[in-house]
Parts: sequence; structure tokens; C-alpha cells
Amino acid sequence: MCQLLGMNCNTPTDIVFSFTGFALRGGLTDEHQDGWGIAFFEGAGVRHLVDYQAAVRSPLAELIKAHPIKSKNVIAHIRKATQGKIALENCHPFIRECWGINWVFAHNGDLPGFMPTLNGTYLPVGTTDSERAFCFILQELRLRFGAQAPQLSELSAALQELCQEIAQFGTFNIMLSNGSALFVHCSTNLHYIIRQFPFNTAHLSDRDMSIDFAEVTTPKDRVAVIATAPLTNNETWAAFAPGEFKVFVDGTCHPES
Amino acid sequence: MCQLLGMNCNTPTDIVFSFTGFALRGGLTDEHQDGWGIAFFEGAGVRHLVDYQAAVRSPLAELIKAHPIKSKNVIAHIRKATQGKIALENCHPFIRECWGINWVFAHNGDLPGFMPTLNGTYLPVGTTDSERAFCFILQELRLRFGAQAPQLSELSAALQELCQEIAQFGTFNIMLSNGSALFVHCSTNLHYIIRQFPFNTAHLSDRDMSIDFAEVTTPKDRVAVIATAPLTNNETWAAFAPGEFKVFVDGTCHPES
Repeated sequence: MCQLLGMNCNTPTDIVFSFTGFALRGGLTDEHQDGWGIAFFEGAGVRHLVDYQAAVRSPLAELIKAHPIKSKNVIAHIRKATQGKIALENCHPFIRECWGINWVFAHNGDLPGFMPTLNGTYLPVGTTDSERAFCFILQELRLRFGAQAPQLSELSAALQELCQEIAQFGTFNIMLSNGSALFVHCSTNLHYIIRQFPFNTAHLSDRDMSIDFAEVTTPKDRVAVIATAPLTNNETWAAFAPGEFKVFVDGTCHPES
Repeated sequence: MCQLLGMNCNTPTDIVFSFTGFALRGGLTDEHQDGWGIAFFEGAGVRHLVDYQAAVRSPLAELIKAHPIKSKNVIAHIRKATQGKIALENCHPFIRECWGINWVFAHNGDLPGFMPTLNGTYLPVGTTDSERAFCFILQELRLRFGAQAPQLSELSAALQELCQEIAQFGTFNIMLSNGSALFVHCSTNLHYIIRQFPFNTAHLSDRDMSIDFAEVTTPKDRVAVIATAPLTNNETWAAFAPGEFKVFVDGTCHPES
């Protein structure tokens, strides 16, 4: 299995604190050492970094910590290979363009027997069931909505339906972003927190490291962080219910819990 | 305008020597400081690094030099913005998936008035004429060949035709790779060299730096390097003729000069 980390904010924010704790699970505090990846939206563009080395030993992961990148939407993933060999093309997150927009996707779980008909609009480059599911989702969005991106409400409803359909085949904890919204479906295990004014000090679970968010934010900032397991041990994270689908926009959660 | 660098080899090779000279043109020995990017194929996967900082000041560019990545196909680009603002989504190389294969594209030149009809299969994320041309090329390949990738000879013939069509609108020096072949079209300015046994010492044009390729290769290695302007000053680079289209596979050039 794998672990997921996502961030959605109303102002570009760096993810170094959360990523530091998360990356330790890639080979040090946990066993996910078969590759990792992270995608940062910057405007319409995406900075996409993937590696098949363990995150704790990766020079790219060090670079991210040394040169913080500010982004409103980030998805990261550390991998324990289940389906698909250890190779760059099998590292999450995956990226595709649809409607002239970049889409980024990462998945935790297995989908035994999920072999949808792919019409060629999007085809997997690697051999994971995850990339197959991503291709299927974008194909179905194109079939439903044609050449134009729909409104967020229609898009969310379609994505929720597609996630429920795919989740019948196994475990489908996912994060998907188009650069403005972060869509999250939980089969088994995801948690989130929304940080907003008044900000407090947070302490990592995986390392003795704290940050006083009041010092690095403005009162109007809102930051949602979503992760497989809570990343801090002095804050209250909300657990997703099995089958739950949420959309994060500008650091707010819909539907609210 | 911009500058291009490409490499195609029969064995995974690092591009640090060539990239070192090339990156100096991104803000030091030349004026191309509006972003840069590089894409390395590793198996079916692609490592895609782009930045809107000048290459000479980019920590990502330093990382590439400090941690050599071995690849059989590489495309790099440094940008002097002509069309499209300075933004991540406008940095070359661009990447898209077609037939379950990653395609990487970079362009030097302007295409005034090039506004092809795009049917939605591929749409630009940014605002450059280059990305528009890339989307058009992949769209036309899909229209011609359907759901299956053609043989290399058919693919090359189609690409040559499409390049000639687009080049009628302006300057179209390009590099395109699907991870096995590197396709190159020249409108105005491209040079290449094929290094093979017996290997010699090469000296950069942009900096006092030499490498003895005999020390870092085996006798069966073949490495083709293609660049806007020759990168070394003690080797003989061949110039592309205007309108020339070449395909590099396993470090060999077709048609041979």
C-alpha cells in the first residue's frame, strides 16, 4: 500500500513542514520505500517530481525542503509497490491534460479485477491499476461533458459517481486536482485538518519538529491538509468515513463535516 | 527566441557535460533567461523539470549537475520569451501521452498566424504557439493512425509532413521524442554531432571545461547530441540544412548525411 498527502489553500503556501513528516514515512518511520512523487500547481503549470528511490534518500526530496515551493494545490505520494514494478512510469502522482487543464492524481489501495474498456483517449504508460483508474476517470469526464469543462458542482457530482463505481473493485483512497479544487475519495483511511486564524503551533508525529503557523501566515489564510494518517500529534484531525467524497476549494471543505 | 539541446543514445548516458555548457547560455553567455526545462526518458517514464528562473540561477539545474541522470533520450530548452508570458505552463519541453507513450516536445522559433483547428484531443495549457503546434501534431497523428502507434517509418514520414506544414508559418526548429526516437526538424539553426568509438576529449565553448569521453564510455556506445549552436569548440558539428528533418535512433542519424 501507499500513503497520500494533499494540500489545498486560498493563498500559495509551502508544504515543507507537512512534507518533512510525510517523507520520513518513505523508508524511515514507515516502509513505503518503492518510490515517491509530488506535484505542485503553480498557476496553470505543474511542477512534477517523481523518483523511484525512497523519499528519505532522495536528493529531489532534499531540494523540496531546501527551496520551498509555494502552491495552492499539492498532491504527494509515497509508494510500497503492490501492482506494477518499481519504475519511474509507475510513480504517483500521474498527470494528464484535459480541456486544456492539467490534472494530477494519486491513489492508495488495490483494485483487483478493475479492467475498464479504455477507448484510447487516455492510456496508461505504466502498469499500475492506479494509472488505469485515472485514465478511465478522465475518459468518462470527456464522454459526459464533451469539449468543455463543466461547472464545479457538475464536475464534483460526476467524480463522486465515478469514484463510487471504481471503489467497488477494491480500495480507492484518492486525491485528484485540476489546480483549483482538490477532490478526495476515501475507501478506508484518510484524515484532514483545516488550519485558519487563529493559527497555533503544530508538532510533527514522525520527528521532533514544530512550527508556529501564526508566524508564517496572515489572518485570512486557510490551508487544508489531507493525509493517510495525521501528520501532527497535537492537533485534531478529522477522519473520512468509508465511501466519503469531499471537495476542497480555497482551503474550505465541501460538504462541511 | 530560444535554444534547444537534445541527446539520443544507444545506452543510458548522462548529459551533464553538454548541459553545463548549454545552461550557461541561460542568462550568462547568452540572453535566454526567461525559464528553462529538461525532460529525461527513463524507461517509459519521464523526469520532467521546468523552471521560470534563469538556468544559471536555478537550484534544479544545480541538482541535475550534482546528481547525473542517465537516459537514452533527453530534450532541454532555455527560453527567451517571445509569445506567452513567463510562467511555468509556458516552459518547454512540453509533455503529453499518446498511444500509452510519453511524448516530449520543445521548439525554437515563432509561428505568427499559426492557429490550427484543435478538436479537443489535446489542448494547450499555456499560451505559447509552441504548445499549440505540439497539440496539433499529436492530434494529427491520432487522426491518421487511430488507436495504434504506427511503425517508425510511417511515423517519421507523417511527422516530416506535419513539420513542413507548420514551418510554412514561421520558424520551426523542434525536437520531439517518444522515448525511443528523437525527431528533429530544422528551419534555421540546428547542429549535431555523433560521438562513437574511438572517443576523444571535448572542450566546451561556453566555459573552460573538458571531458575525455574515452574514460566514461565503452567502445559500443553511440551518442548523438543536437543543439542550436555547437557546444564544443574542438569537434566538428554538422549543420542541419533549412527544412531538413532527421530521426535519431540508438545514436544513429537517419537519413545519414
